[in-house]
Amino acid sequence: MEAKAFPMNSGDGAYSYTKNSYYQRAASYAVKEMLEEAIAEKFDVTSLSSSSNTIRIADLGCSVGPNTFITMQNLIESMERKCHSQDRTNMPEFHLFFNDHASNDFNTLFSSLPPGRHYFAAGVPGSFHGRLFPKSSLHFVHSSYALHWLSKVPEDLLDKSSPAWNKGRIHCKNASEQVANAYANQFAKDMEVFLVARADEIAVGGMMVVIMPAHPEGDRPSQSMARVALDFIEQSFVDMVKVGSISEAELDSFNLPLYSPSLKEMTQLVQSNGCFSIESMELTDPLSKIVCPLNIRALVMHLRAALEGIFTKHFGSEIIDELFERTLDKFAELSSRFESCCGQQDTQLFLVLKRK
Amino acid sequence: MEAKAFPMNSGDGAYSYTKNSYYQRAASYAVKEMLEEAIAEKFDVTSLSSSSNTIRIADLGCSVGPNTFITMQNLIESMERKCHSQDRTNMPEFHLFFNDHASNDFNTLFSSLPPGRHYFAAGVPGSFHGRLFPKSSLHFVHSSYALHWLSKVPEDLLDKSSPAWNKGRIHCKNASEQVANAYANQFAKDMEVFLVARADEIAVGGMMVVIMPAHPEGDRPSQSMARVALDFIEQSFVDMVKVGSISEAELDSFNLPLYSPSLKEMTQLVQSNGCFSIESMELTDPLSKIVCPLNIRALVMHLRAALEGIFTKHFGSEIIDELFERTLDKFAELSSRFESCCGQQDTQLFLVLKRK
Repeated sequence: MEAKAFPMNSGDGAYSYTKNSYYQRAASYAVKEMLEEAIAEKFDVTSLSSSSNTIRIADLGCSVGPNTFITMQNLIESMERKCHSQDRTNMPEFHLFFNDHASNDFNTLFSSLPPGRHYFAAGVPGSFHGRLFPKSSLHFVHSSYALHWLSKVPEDLLDKSSPAWNKGRIHCKNASEQVANAYANQFAKDMEVFLVARADEIAVGGMMVVIMPAHPEGDRPSQSMARVALDFIEQSFVDMVKVGSISEAELDSFNLPLYSPSLKEMTQLVQSNGCFSIESMELTDPLSKIVCPLNIRALVMHLRAALEGIFTKHFGSEIIDELFERTLDKFAELSSRFESCCGQQDTQLFLVLKRK
Repeated sequence: MEAKAFPMNSGDGAYSYTKNSYYQRAASYAVKEMLEEAIAEKFDVTSLSSSSNTIRIADLGCSVGPNTFITMQNLIESMERKCHSQDRTNMPEFHLFFNDHASNDFNTLFSSLPPGRHYFAAGVPGSFHGRLFPKSSLHFVHSSYALHWLSKVPEDLLDKSSPAWNKGRIHCKNASEQVANAYANQFAKDMEVFLVARADEIAVGGMMVVIMPAHPEGDRPSQSMARVALDFIEQSFVDMVKVGSISEAELDSFNLPLYSPSLKEMTQLVQSNGCFSIESMELTDPLSKIVCPLNIRALVMHLRAALEGIFTKHFGSEIIDELFERTLDKFAELSSRFESCCGQQDTQLFLVLKRK
């Protein structure tokens, strides 16, 4: 069955990091043009750099690279092009701040900074659910695939007496209205804190671009690829309870702190904060440039790379191999359900805000 | 002999980091008052923070803490006191940049940042022998015990055909005039590059405080503690060649890239750069507050903590234990020579510069 299900699997080399970040990179190519357009049309590099001749840029939730370096390089080139088009003779200097939690591997990030880069680099440890920079000190903030991580699991999900107790599930997909609301409320609180902090830090006229999973108005999509993938993982956990690999209590007490909002929710949260104008809000298919059929094994490796840490923390490292083997089997058994999503799902939000 | 030579040695606990940074901390206590005075008298916090209400501070060569955190805390408290004394109602925000080579352990630095700190923290990887920050973006630069590390070993020292070939020695102390000149020239080049970069980065009126080993005018002191310590290490290496632990060629091809200038040299280098005024230049005894007799074993542990990395790189890790055991024996045998230096050597430069 394995050979049949994974025709693109060509040996150990296929599991390298390069292969495992294929989907991520595909998504960032799709974003590149939108980012260039936002800067060309709406980022006033000249007036923002007028006082100090410096543009300060932060990447919030940068991880360890190389995607952050590629994106930052694109950003700076777009800004330099804009300066050239305005016949500026003195280019601004660029000060880049790479932010992630203090537990991020900044040593790896720093040792892989691109040589010959056109910017001054700094690392900023700490949660973006709080202040990280002095007032009005930033001109451009970028955050890609970071804001869907909630600051914590909503407490009600773990309370057996609450209607939002999320027994036997790891997420709000497929779950009750109460569970979905608990997730939505936590996301709303997190976004409020995030927007208040960024409103303090971003200078008037400065821009913020947020890229994250989202879905259309009022819709909790049943067929998105992310939902199907989470379903498969959840079903694998349920099977593992059945065979005794993990206990029921362990599963009941685990919930993934991940959330993808609707466009309507995001719009309301930005408007209720009141400090930013929405310059652009697009939902696109992050995988539109990938040819089907998908390399399922690579996709599961990618899920593992993203989620292994959080599963290990709760369940221990000894269950990880079994979990992802079972998940891979689900993908293989139910590949038709999964492949039907390919190329027809707009699940990536590209949001451009400007500090009023 | 060991018991006699190391009366203060009280077991394993004495070799902890806390004990091994005793001399360093003693030196930083001595500096604390001088730093407070420099800020109170000569740092114009109000005018420097007038445009952005932010004071940007860099610690160049910060290592992993905790000394950098203690010093930065003192700095900020001094600046806050100055604001209070000027009846300022709105305190500036402080943005701190911790700099060291990219190979420094920033993960450790970031995970030990003091909770409840009154500043925004960032890490800046890279050599301070080059630009690290945008133009005129810093208001205060601090560098303690970092500038005595040369950017490289002067090349002539390794050239057998050069009069500056430093055969059988690891440093310019005790060496020929040509060797001393090669070291001095390298330091002059490094300081020039350093001052040019800092002149770009520090705003007009901004301050730079440099703390490093130095010695009085025109004098190459024969009795300073650092010199005696280096002598002991050098003699240990020579002994190790004799017994075959290392080869003659290995010793001949090694030189420590460390240099301590005279006050006259420093003055000339600052003046020749031309961008900074010398506000204060003091030579003090960094160990004046330590009661003799010294804890020799702790001092050797301290030397080992500072130099093990560079020795390992050239000679391999297997010679390190022998080297420092032999060095400890030298200290024990020749303790009178060493102890005669105690409390009567002004070898720590405290230099206050202001960007013109």
